[in-house]
Amino acid sequence: MIIIMRPDSTDEQINHVVEKLKKHGFGIHLSKGVERTVIGAIGDKSAIELESIQMLPGVSEIVPIRKPYKLVSRELKNTDTIVKISKSLSIGAGRKLAVIAGPCSVESEVGMLEVARLVKKAGAAALRGGAYKPRTSPYSFQGLGKKGLEILKMAGEKTGLPVVTEALDPRDVKLVEKYADVIQIGARNMQNFNLLKEVGKANIPVLLKRGPAAKVEDLLMSAEYIMSEGNHNVILCIRGITTFETATRNTLDLSAVPVIKKLSHLPVVVDPSHGTGKWDLVSAMSKAAVAAGADGLMIEVHPRPDEALSDGPQSLKPDTFAELMKELKLVAQAVGRKA
Amino acid sequence: MIIIMRPDSTDEQINHVVEKLKKHGFGIHLSKGVERTVIGAIGDKSAIELESIQMLPGVSEIVPIRKPYKLVSRELKNTDTIVKISKSLSIGAGRKLAVIAGPCSVESEVGMLEVARLVKKAGAAALRGGAYKPRTSPYSFQGLGKKGLEILKMAGEKTGLPVVTEALDPRDVKLVEKYADVIQIGARNMQNFNLLKEVGKANIPVLLKRGPAAKVEDLLMSAEYIMSEGNHNVILCIRGITTFETATRNTLDLSAVPVIKKLSHLPVVVDPSHGTGKWDLVSAMSKAAVAAGADGLMIEVHPRPDEALSDGPQSLKPDTFAELMKELKLVAQAVGRKA
Amino acid sequence: MIIIMRPDSTDEQINHVVEKLKKHGFGIHLSKGVERTVIGAIGDKSAIELESIQMLPGVSEIVPIRKPYKLVSRELKNTDTIVKISKSLSIGAGRKLAVIAGPCSVESEVGMLEVARLVKKAGAAALRGGAYKPRTSPYSFQGLGKKGLEILKMAGEKTGLPVVTEALDPRDVKLVEKYADVIQIGARNMQNFNLLKEVGKANIPVLLKRGPAAKVEDLLMSAEYIMSEGNHNVILCIRGITTFETATRNTLDLSAVPVIKKLSHLPVVVDPSHGTGKWDLVSAMSKAAVAAGADGLMIEVHPRPDEALSDGPQSLKPDTFAELMKELKLVAQAVGRKA
Amino acid sequence: MIIIMRPDSTDEQINHVVEKLKKHGFGIHLSKGVERTVIGAIGDKSAIELESIQMLPGVSEIVPIRKPYKLVSRELKNTDTIVKISKSLSIGAGRKLAVIAGPCSVESEVGMLEVARLVKKAGAAALRGGAYKPRTSPYSFQGLGKKGLEILKMAGEKTGLPVVTEALDPRDVKLVEKYADVIQIGARNMQNFNLLKEVGKANIPVLLKRGPAAKVEDLLMSAEYIMSEGNHNVILCIRGITTFETATRNTLDLSAVPVIKKLSHLPVVVDPSHGTGKWDLVSAMSKAAVAAGADGLMIEVHPRPDEALSDGPQSLKPDTFAELMKELKLVAQAVGRKA
Repeated sequence: MIIIMRPDSTDEQINHVVEKLKKHGFGIHLSKGVERTVIGAIGDKSAIELESIQMLPGVSEIVPIRKPYKLVSRELKNTDTIVKISKSLSIGAGRKLAVIAGPCSVESEVGMLEVARLVKKAGAAALRGGAYKPRTSPYSFQGLGKKGLEILKMAGEKTGLPVVTEALDPRDVKLVEKYADVIQIGARNMQNFNLLKEVGKANIPVLLKRGPAAKVEDLLMSAEYIMSEGNHNVILCIRGITTFETATRNTLDLSAVPVIKKLSHLPVVVDPSHGTGKWDLVSAMSKAAVAAGADGLMIEVHPRPDEALSDGPQSLKPDTFAELMKELKLVAQAVGRKA
Repeated sequence: MIIIMRPDSTDEQINHVVEKLKKHGFGIHLSKGVERTVIGAIGDKSAIELESIQMLPGVSEIVPIRKPYKLVSRELKNTDTIVKISKSLSIGAGRKLAVIAGPCSVESEVGMLEVARLVKKAGAAALRGGAYKPRTSPYSFQGLGKKGLEILKMAGEKTGLPVVTEALDPRDVKLVEKYADVIQIGARNMQNFNLLKEVGKANIPVLLKRGPAAKVEDLLMSAEYIMSEGNHNVILCIRGITTFETATRNTLDLSAVPVIKKLSHLPVVVDPSHGTGKWDLVSAMSKAAVAAGADGLMIEVHPRPDEALSDGPQSLKPDTFAELMKELKLVAQAVGRKA
Repeated sequence: MIIIMRPDSTDEQINHVVEKLKKHGFGIHLSKGVERTVIGAIGDKSAIELESIQMLPGVSEIVPIRKPYKLVSRELKNTDTIVKISKSLSIGAGRKLAVIAGPCSVESEVGMLEVARLVKKAGAAALRGGAYKPRTSPYSFQGLGKKGLEILKMAGEKTGLPVVTEALDPRDVKLVEKYADVIQIGARNMQNFNLLKEVGKANIPVLLKRGPAAKVEDLLMSAEYIMSEGNHNVILCIRGITTFETATRNTLDLSAVPVIKKLSHLPVVVDPSHGTGKWDLVSAMSKAAVAAGADGLMIEVHPRPDEALSDGPQSLKPDTFAELMKELKLVAQAVGRKA
Repeated sequence: MIIIMRPDSTDEQINHVVEKLKKHGFGIHLSKGVERTVIGAIGDKSAIELESIQMLPGVSEIVPIRKPYKLVSRELKNTDTIVKISKSLSIGAGRKLAVIAGPCSVESEVGMLEVARLVKKAGAAALRGGAYKPRTSPYSFQGLGKKGLEILKMAGEKTGLPVVTEALDPRDVKLVEKYADVIQIGARNMQNFNLLKEVGKANIPVLLKRGPAAKVEDLLMSAEYIMSEGNHNVILCIRGITTFETATRNTLDLSAVPVIKKLSHLPVVVDPSHGTGKWDLVSAMSKAAVAAGADGLMIEVHPRPDEALSDGPQSLKPDTFAELMKELKLVAQAVGRKA
C-alpha cells in the first residue's frame, strides 16, 4: 500500500504514520519528494484496516496495491474455472454456450412442465423458475415456496434439464439445495452476507447475480464470501445496473463481461430479461452478450406472458425463444464458441 | 389505472384489453380520441398485476393512479406518526430533534461505556453500536455478535440511553429484540424481504435505512412490508445513494427528507456519517439535514477513530461531536424545532 | 395529454384546469371516478407547456401521450433512414456495417496519412480525427484547429476515405463543413443547442453523440433540433453513460441501440473506444454492438498509442484493429448484415 | 506521480517506463517490493499526459499526486475569494448570504419589473432572468434574446439590483457582458470549453453551474478554464446531479458545498429550484443549503408560476419567497452568517 502525505504534513505526522505501519508488521519505504512525502508499506493489507491509516493527521490519500479479493482473482488462479452442473452441463470458457430458460415464477405443475418441454426442445441447457420470489410489494405474489421447488424438480426430471432456483433466506438454503442443481442468489441479496455464507457451505453450484448498485469489484467480493466458505463453484451473472435511463428497467452493462474475464477466472452469464425488463430487447441483447464473451444466458420464457404472475413483460414466448436460439447459434459460432 | 393504447391499435386489441380488465373486476371508462384510445380502469390495482396489462397487444403505456403503498401513505393517515422508543424518547414531527450516536461497531466493554458516557454528556438521545456487521470483505471484522449485544445493552443501561442496533439475519431478530430498543435494518438489507417480515413481527420500533440504489418509493414499499406484518413503529433513515460522484462515499440525498414528508406520515432521520463517508463533512451535512426537516440524526462517534475496527474515517471524535450538538441546537431552533 | 387530479381536488379546481385547457384549444374528456377525476385533453401538446398545467391546484400528475419529438420519430416516418456520406458509403439499416476509424486527434501529416492507409487497408469505411478537441483541462492539447482539418482532408483524399471530424463552436461549423464529409457533435455538446442549430443548416451529414447524462429521449430531442433546421442526415452515436461503475470510463449502454431502433428511423453507430475508455475492451464491445444491431462503429486507432496526444489508452494498434475487422465480419454475417 | 507496475512486469518493462519518464524530465524514485515495483516520478504532471504512461506494457496503475487544477485550488490560494458584483453586493465566505432571485425567463417589461420589485422588497440581493434559454425541445420558447437583456437591465436599474443572466453562445458573450452584472454559464454548457474561454476574457464575474453528470472535480476544471483566461471572479453554483431517483428532477448534492470549500477558495451558491424541480421542495432545500455552508442561493420566483413560459413548477410565488427569506435569515444566523 502507498500512503501519500499532504504537502503541509509535518515530520511528526510522517513519523506517526510510519510507526503505526511498523507496529502492524509492514516494511517501510520512505520517499521524500520536494513537494510531498510518499510512504510505501510492504506487507499484507488485511493486517490492518486501510481506513485507520487514511485518517491519520497529514495523510492525503491511500493507494491500495493489492486487490481486496483473492480466491476469485485471476492473479491467484489463471485458468478459467469450469463449473460442472450435471453430467451433461458445464459452464465456463471454452464450453458450449449455456442457455438457462424458464418462467420467472413457478406457477403450476402443468404450466411448468409445458415450459420445460418447450425450452428443452428449443435447445436450452437448464431450466429456471422461482419458488421464493423477492417482490417489492408485500401484496404481490410471493412464490409457491416448497411446493414450487417440488414442481420445478419434477419438470427438470421429466425433461432431463438441471434446474436453477433462488434462495432468499439463510433458513431455506438446505431445502433449496435438496431440490435444485444450482442455487441462485438474486440481485437484491448480493450483499446479504449471511445468505452468501450459507450457500458457501452448500454442495451445489451458486449463480450469483450482480446487484443493481454494485460495482464489478463488489460482485467479486460477494463471490469471495461464497468461496471463502469452501464452495468454489460460483457462476457470476450480469443483470442491469441502476442508472438515470428510464427507457429500460435497468441498464445492462455488457462491458462487465470482458472486465470480469480480465479480473477473475469464474464463468459469466448474462440475464437480458431482467437486464432490460422488456421482451422486445431480449433478442438483441442476448446476441450482444454472446458476442461480448458471455459463457451463458439466463432468459425468461413463458407460454402466455400476459398471464404470468410476475415479470411477464420481460418474458419471451416459446416461439420467439426458439427463433432466438437459432440466431444465438450463429453468433456463438462467429465468436468461436460451440453452441 | 389508465391504459394508453398505441396509435395503430385495432378495435380487436382494445376490446381484448377491456375484456381482460372487466374479468378482473374493473369498471371501464373508454375514451376514443382522434389519435389514441385511452382506457380508464376503475377499481383495485392489486387485483391484477399491472405488468400483465402492459404487454397486451396494442398497449402503449400504463399509468397507475394509486400509489403502490398504503399503510405508509399520508393519503391513508395524514397525522404524523410519533415513534415512542422509551419513556424519555419519542421521534417524529414536532418532537425534539433526536440524535442517535455511537461507534460503528461495538468493540469492547470499556470502549463502549466510554463512548456512551461521552455522547450522553453531549446530549445524544440514544446510543448506537453494531454487533452484527455487514462487511464487503469476508476477511474484515464481522462484529462481536451476541457478546456485542450484551455490551451495548449494558452501556445503554448504565447511561440511561435507549440502544439501536442492526439485525442482519432473520434468525437473529428475536435475539436483537431482546437486547435492543430499536432494531436497525441496514441499507444493504432494505430489500431483504424475509428480514423485513421478521422485524414486522417484532414488538420494538424499526429504523429502516434507504438502500444505495433505492428510490424513495422503494424505501416506502419496504416500510410497507414491515407495517403489513403489524409493526407500525417504523423510522425511515436517509443515507447516501449511489451516484457517479467519487468525492464522497455516497451522495447524501437530503431532498428525500421533504419528499418523504409529503408522501408519508413516518418520521425521518438522516445518517450523515454513512451518507458522506468522511468525518469532516458530517457537521455541515448534519446541520443541513436538520434545516431540511429531519426528525433526527444518526452519527458515528468514536473516541479514537484511527483505531476503530470499522468506519473510522467517518466517525467524529467526542469533542467534535459535542461541538456539533451545540450548533445543531441553534439550527433546530432556527427551523422551529425543540433541541 | 391526461391530467390526473388529486383525490382531494375540488370541483372548482377541476373546472379551473378544464377552462385553462379549453382556452388553449384542447378538446376535453372528463372522467370522474369514485376516487379520482381524470381529464383527457385532446389536441396539440406543443400549444401549451405541460409544466403550466402540472402546477395548477389539485393536479396530481400529467401524462403526456405524444412523444415530444416528431421528425426523428418512427411514428412519422417508418422507413429506415439511410444517410449517404459519399459515393461509396451510406450508413443505415440494411447497408454494410460501416466502420469509422482513426486517431482521437489529428497530430501530424505523416502520422495521419500512416493511420489512414492502415485503417483503409483493414477495411474501414471512413476516417476520423479531431482538429478541435474538447479537453477537461485548459492545459491539455487542444487540437491543431484549421491545420488539423487540412491534414485530415489530405489523408482522406489520398486514401479515398470520407472524413468525420468534430465541430465544437458555432463559429467553426462553416469551416469544418468545408473540409469534412461528416460533422461530428461530441457528447459534451449534445445539448449545445446553438451548435445543433448551426449544423442543422449545414449541407453535410451530422454524427450526433449521446451525452454522458442524456437519456435516449434527450438524444432524440437533440437530433430533432438538427432536423428542425432542415438537415435530415443525422447519424446517432452511442457512447457510454455516466454511472457509479469505475472499472470503465463510462458504461456503454448497448441496449440503447434496439431502443432507438424502435423509436426512430435514424441510423445508429457505437463508439466502443470512448464507451469503455480501455483498448482491451474495445474488441469485445465492438462485436457486441454489431450483434445488438448497430449500423456502424467508430473506433480509435493509433499506430503508437503510448505517444498519442489524447486518448491513447482507448486506442487500438493497427494490427489489433485489422484483427478485429475480420472478427466483425463474422459477427455481422451472423446477424444477417453485409460486412 | 506514482506508477504501480504489475506483479508480472519484467525488468525491461520497468526500464522502459523509467526511460520514458526521464525523457520528459521527471526525477525517478524506484522502489522494488517483493511483490511489486513502484516508481515515483517527481516533476510536473502537465509535462506529459498521464494516459501515455498508463498504457505502457507492465504498468498496472497510475496515481496522480497533484490535483489537475491549480488556480481554483486552495493549495495555491488559501484565503477565501470574495467576488465583488456591485458596490452593495459581494459574494463569498464571511459575507452576507446572497440571494439571487427572479423568473426563469424574461417574459415582458411589466412582468419583469413586477418580479424585480417583489424580490427586492423581500430582501433579494440580485435579480436573475434568462434572455437566452437552453430548451430540450426546438419547439419550446427560446427566450427573448437581446430584447430580454434590455428588459432585465431596465428592471435591475429601476430596483437597484445587479442582474445575472445566462450566455449560451460564444458569439453572445460580448452582448451579455454589456447588459449583465454577472454572466451565468448554465449546467448544459459547463463543458462548452470555447464558451468558458470567452467568459474567461470578460470583465464581469461568472456564475458557473455544475453540469448534471459532472463530478466536483470536473466543475473545478471548468472554473480553471475561466480563470486561466484571466477572469478570476468565478462563483460556483451547485444544482442537481443526474441519478436514478425520479421523485425529484435532479438530486441536489448539497455535500458538494463542504467538499468544494475544502478544495477551493471560490464562493459557492446553490440553486434549489433547478436542483429539485419542484417548488414545494425549494424552501426546505434552501435552508439546508445555507446550513451546509452555501454563500448564496439562486431561486426562481414568478408572480404567476402557472403562466410562466418556462420552469413554472419550480418557481416560488412572491409571498412564499418572502416567507422563505425570513426563515433563511434565522438559519443563516444559526450557522454564524450575516443575513
